[in-house]
Amino acid sequence: MTKTELFNQIKTKKSYLCVGLDTDIKKIPKHLLSSEDPVFEFNKAIIDATSDLCVSYKPNIAFYEAMGPKGWQSLAKTLEYIPKDCFSIADAKRGDIGNTSSLYARAFFDKSASGMSFDSITVAPYMGKDSVSPFLEFENKWVILLALTSNEGGKDFQNLELAEGTEVYKKVLEVSKNWGDSERLMYVVGATRAEKLREIRAIVPDSFLLVPGVGAQGGSLFEVSKYGMNATCGLLVNSSRGIIYASSGEDFAEKAREEAQKIQTEMAEYLDQFLK
Amino acid sequence: MTKTELFNQIKTKKSYLCVGLDTDIKKIPKHLLSSEDPVFEFNKAIIDATSDLCVSYKPNIAFYEAMGPKGWQSLAKTLEYIPKDCFSIADAKRGDIGNTSSLYARAFFDKSASGMSFDSITVAPYMGKDSVSPFLEFENKWVILLALTSNEGGKDFQNLELAEGTEVYKKVLEVSKNWGDSERLMYVVGATRAEKLREIRAIVPDSFLLVPGVGAQGGSLFEVSKYGMNATCGLLVNSSRGIIYASSGEDFAEKAREEAQKIQTEMAEYLDQFLK
Repeated sequence: MTKTELFNQIKTKKSYLCVGLDTDIKKIPKHLLSSEDPVFEFNKAIIDATSDLCVSYKPNIAFYEAMGPKGWQSLAKTLEYIPKDCFSIADAKRGDIGNTSSLYARAFFDKSASGMSFDSITVAPYMGKDSVSPFLEFENKWVILLALTSNEGGKDFQNLELAEGTEVYKKVLEVSKNWGDSERLMYVVGATRAEKLREIRAIVPDSFLLVPGVGAQGGSLFEVSKYGMNATCGLLVNSSRGIIYASSGEDFAEKAREEAQKIQTEMAEYLDQFLK
Repeated sequence: MTKTELFNQIKTKKSYLCVGLDTDIKKIPKHLLSSEDPVFEFNKAIIDATSDLCVSYKPNIAFYEAMGPKGWQSLAKTLEYIPKDCFSIADAKRGDIGNTSSLYARAFFDKSASGMSFDSITVAPYMGKDSVSPFLEFENKWVILLALTSNEGGKDFQNLELAEGTEVYKKVLEVSKNWGDSERLMYVVGATRAEKLREIRAIVPDSFLLVPGVGAQGGSLFEVSKYGMNATCGLLVNSSRGIIYASSGEDFAEKAREEAQKIQTEMAEYLDQFLK
């Protein structure tokens, strides 16, 4: 999916919501467990209930990997089921030396090799340019690079101040934006404070930002939208648990839709207000 | 496997060689392709040919993941086949927020969930403490944290100088050594220069270092051993392509053994010379 296509979806649906498919076999409603592939059945119901309200789905790969080969089958079936007008994100946080990252790219982008072809993958920046470039060799595929994560441990290294007077995560933005432009490279930015978002936008004005941590992790959608939005929206705001586990009963999909609807309604307003 | 058990293996086999199972279906000898699981057949032959000469096997997960669900089956069979006296490393370079890293830990350490239980996993440090801790909750399992990688891009961020006067990779060593001791935490250190190894040893004197880049990537085993070895050896030196692709013919296992033998012979000497 191109940047223009993504922005068109955002305008059509009046939404920049990404639904995180962090589907844990231990957390899904009990009545699904008797089906042949409970994880896929759960995801299917969530997708059916939310696909007109969101523009993106983000399966977190760990949840599938934890189930061994059958987890990968559930993942492949889920990806197949995601409507083609939704931007698919493999939240895999991979990254290795060049020839190995090429293999990870095959795993997530090359259907003939692995059975899967996502639109994008999240990548960790620690190993630098040659760990990221192999993903960018696939046409119309995106890298979503970790810059500032919202977890407590994010501060351990990302916020360290460099001798040159900037912080590590800003340096990641500054350096990596030369590896690919805003048509191919997005960033994970777990910032919800106005000040931080302003600073980040000064470095990567045109890039899409994938923002986790709104909802269960406690960020403010208003702040993110006000200070993060640019001329092509430039935001994908993720909610995982707040939507998919809104109910643990047989009404889980219905309740998921209600939660997604609340967020989409808010987003429609912010698009009116803040789209530059 | 405990640190003492690992050191005992090193003394018994007079080797600190780790064989990297970077098994690429596109690179293995053609005569294997007709078998039901060519990747496993290749690994089995390599393991049979080298297991008395090395103390560790390190499948790089990307190579298996790139093949979809059947790749994970080859990986599980390979792990099952690795002799129990060899330290197994899932070279996965994972790392995510706490609840997600718990799932990755399930994937690589919890046989009842995923079908696999490695002795250790490589983890990227960018997301900090809570991305690493979940792996340390599994008894007798190890985290091998990326510190200094040997690829060109490693310099992009790992070697940046911090305001406090140290480099990022050293800060990773300094901070993380409080997350777990040298009985549970190792480091990936792609250093082969004396000066760097001395500095690293000053920070983590007792930790095992997993050193890639000897062989195909051009490092010197002599330097690594002279400046990196401590009282419990403290080194696992990896060679992947130099061993497993020593020949592309039917004699691949035999040639792999010859290469492993050369390295082991050298290592036996260095253990005599440098073990403190």
